[in-house]
Amino acid sequence: MAAAIKDERIRGVLAPVLTPFDRDLNPDTKRFVAFSRVLTQLGIGLAPFGTTSEGNSLSVEEKMALLDALAAGGIDMGRVMAGTGTCSLPDTVRLTKHAVAVGCGGALMLPPFYYKGVPDEGLFRAYASVIERVADSRLRIYLYHFPKQSGVPLSLPLIERLLKAFPGIVVGIKDSSGEIANMEAMRKAFPGFDVFTGTEALGLRMLRQGGAGIISANANVNGAAMVELVRRWRDPDAETLQEALTAFRVAMQDFPLIAALKALVARATGDQAWRITRPPLVDLTLEAEDAMVRRLEKAGFPV
Amino acid sequence: MAAAIKDERIRGVLAPVLTPFDRDLNPDTKRFVAFSRVLTQLGIGLAPFGTTSEGNSLSVEEKMALLDALAAGGIDMGRVMAGTGTCSLPDTVRLTKHAVAVGCGGALMLPPFYYKGVPDEGLFRAYASVIERVADSRLRIYLYHFPKQSGVPLSLPLIERLLKAFPGIVVGIKDSSGEIANMEAMRKAFPGFDVFTGTEALGLRMLRQGGAGIISANANVNGAAMVELVRRWRDPDAETLQEALTAFRVAMQDFPLIAALKALVARATGDQAWRITRPPLVDLTLEAEDAMVRRLEKAGFPV
Repeated sequence: MAAAIKDERIRGVLAPVLTPFDRDLNPDTKRFVAFSRVLTQLGIGLAPFGTTSEGNSLSVEEKMALLDALAAGGIDMGRVMAGTGTCSLPDTVRLTKHAVAVGCGGALMLPPFYYKGVPDEGLFRAYASVIERVADSRLRIYLYHFPKQSGVPLSLPLIERLLKAFPGIVVGIKDSSGEIANMEAMRKAFPGFDVFTGTEALGLRMLRQGGAGIISANANVNGAAMVELVRRWRDPDAETLQEALTAFRVAMQDFPLIAALKALVARATGDQAWRITRPPLVDLTLEAEDAMVRRLEKAGFPV
Repeated sequence: MAAAIKDERIRGVLAPVLTPFDRDLNPDTKRFVAFSRVLTQLGIGLAPFGTTSEGNSLSVEEKMALLDALAAGGIDMGRVMAGTGTCSLPDTVRLTKHAVAVGCGGALMLPPFYYKGVPDEGLFRAYASVIERVADSRLRIYLYHFPKQSGVPLSLPLIERLLKAFPGIVVGIKDSSGEIANMEAMRKAFPGFDVFTGTEALGLRMLRQGGAGIISANANVNGAAMVELVRRWRDPDAETLQEALTAFRVAMQDFPLIAALKALVARATGDQAWRITRPPLVDLTLEAEDAMVRRLEKAGFPV
């Protein structure tokens, strides 16, 4: 039964899990596992080390240790899609190997993101080099397209080439471009390719087109509502569910998102240490927090 | 005597040393040290793990091992300005500590470069957190301003704040913006702050304004001419020296620079393995190489 579950593709809602830090700016493993467990109990899958997780502010060693802690904490690793893409080939290989070894259902992989304007050939080789070195048939790669943040877009011809070269290994994408046209084009061009929208504002629209689900920052605090949409997108009131998700997102959009989400978790749990971000991010100011709370309340989301 | 040399600030011409790889895409330590030695014998300082070095495509462990090899190879580490800035605090701390431990005269430090649009406060904390954790009075930080590549510019107010908070530790900058106005503004605003231009095209102009020197990709293959300019910038024919440097740079500018430089080193040394780049970069095509060679010859630089 466990084996059968593991063979299933990851679908639905995933949270790029917020990473709690202690006062010395080290990851707080205990709170990380506890928070992850709460998310999974709400039916939310885990995408640790995404952008919202401050994943690129963590070392490979820290990420490996956090994955170990999830596994040791009894999390169903088959539903974990770990962010493993770094700037350097050996780091990405090492982390991805570890993710596979601890049973992660997927690896959400940014391209190497320091060099800008690189040709598709170079990006193809970057992914191919990782796949060849990980050399494990259990590897499931979800490409991570986030041009605004990474500065390195993933083009449709590149994706097509990867799918042809590595069928069953390159299986999906998280598209954080926010561009519906790009997501629709991928759904049409690549049958069976799992497209996750990085914004819940496009959740219903993509679910109707066979999208695989939603991987959104806000799933850390509003994930249950996203799970509801994924369950009931065929229902007559699905638009209402979508509207509420969009309203929440709009209410959050003027605040530095990661710090804002951490402040919300701190309020919800009463654990003030949740507010801590790692540089170059800064914790939310009290003024911004007040404004956010008022904005959320006005939008119908009392916190 | 050695101690006296170590206390001197790094000045003059530095090459962001090209990193040779073997066929398995691992750094080739032996060729790296040999090439570094040739550069130093020409009077060129070393800035390993810069952008041109594919420094962000290397793991922390690989960079530490290459620094160890330079030290073991008898290189004067006091003239080495090692690139140590990564996306993650623990990685930057670990690598910077190592650079200080092996006697590097400076650490050329990118800000954490994944998150874009972060406030100066966050960038200040990023540098401050590294300095506090390295906790070594021998640390000399050169900020690395390369907005086009890193996506994270370093503003004058940020630099001012860092200089006030960490005098004698934050000592200079490599400005790869190519903007003369920015370099001039820094020279005026911050007396004693060592401004290195990232483009040799602005070499003479910045030397006349008290610039500390040049750290340019092309120093890997045309560094001797830059050293000549730094020695003789007060001479009547300095403009001629500058014109030749600029002509070389212009001849190279339409080619993917890192791969092009590696091809030139391969031609000069007869060692074809020098052509290898790590993904996401791609090696220079033969067509591009032919075009580059013709272009250089036409500009008066037969290769």
